[in-house]
Amino acid sequence: MNVPERPGDEVSAVEAANTELYAAFEAGDLDRMGAVWADGALAESVACVHPGWPMVRGRTAVLRSWALIMANTTYIQFFLTDLDIRVDGEVAVVTCSENILTAAEEGSGAEFAAGGKVVSTNVFRGTETGWRLWLHHGSPVLTPAEGEENDE
Amino acid sequence: MNVPERPGDEVSAVEAANTELYAAFEAGDLDRMGAVWADGALAESVACVHPGWPMVRGRTAVLRSWALIMANTTYIQFFLTDLDIRVDGEVAVVTCSENILTAAEEGSGAEFAAGGKVVSTNVFRGTETGWRLWLHHGSPVLTPAEGEENDE
Repeated sequence: MNVPERPGDEVSAVEAANTELYAAFEAGDLDRMGAVWADGALAESVACVHPGWPMVRGRTAVLRSWALIMANTTYIQFFLTDLDIRVDGEVAVVTCSENILTAAEEGSGAEFAAGGKVVSTNVFRGTETGWRLWLHHGSPVLTPAEGEENDE
Repeated sequence: MNVPERPGDEVSAVEAANTELYAAFEAGDLDRMGAVWADGALAESVACVHPGWPMVRGRTAVLRSWALIMANTTYIQFFLTDLDIRVDGEVAVVTCSENILTAAEEGSGAEFAAGGKVVSTNVFRGTETGWRLWLHHGSPVLTPAEGEENDE
């Protein structure tokens, strides 16, 4: 993790907010997911890109999209790698790789399956209720990864 | 465009910086592309996700990736839609849809071809040399778009 600009406790708070996004998804808990995302004056400007999706804008539409995805997810677990956190004023930009484990298809003989890799940008805003997610942008990694300086 | 938080001139400056990213790509001009991206103390922390790619980190690796992509692009033109600009302190978050026109394949009989749609998050930092790109995250839109509240 690269943390050049802020005291450790602030970066830790951002990291905790980022972890909670994935924990809420893993738990399939829409209330927790709702608490992760910005609300109030920021509600209209929240935006979310699920891997392969167009941009979804606005808190209501974003939470509806999560409800749909979670309803269609039997099991999912995230292993975050390549985590980078930058805080500048009231904006925090987190980038990470999501290594995903999902339920295996029925009849495959396995219980779990590697569900691919997603790279994500998560932008948080500092609010009176702590760091709240303002933008999530996840995208599928379709090319073979050869480390960070992949140039295929 | 949604611009709730800042004077118009600042938003205009961010929009100009965002436009220049795509103009530099269209022109295949690596010098212009280099001028778009943050440098100096921010050089190590710049990051870029091309559609379908893993995260590329660091100014050197990012510009190398652009050089490779531009060398392999005969013709490209961007039509940006759904542009949204948010400025908070020295951080500006731009989201947009890139509607792409590329050179048609040889023998297709057409000169140009629709090259698909990409959604992008572009994070700029205010610096002494103006707004410089700090993070670009582009991702392919793989599902049919039914407007912003797509929920497939």
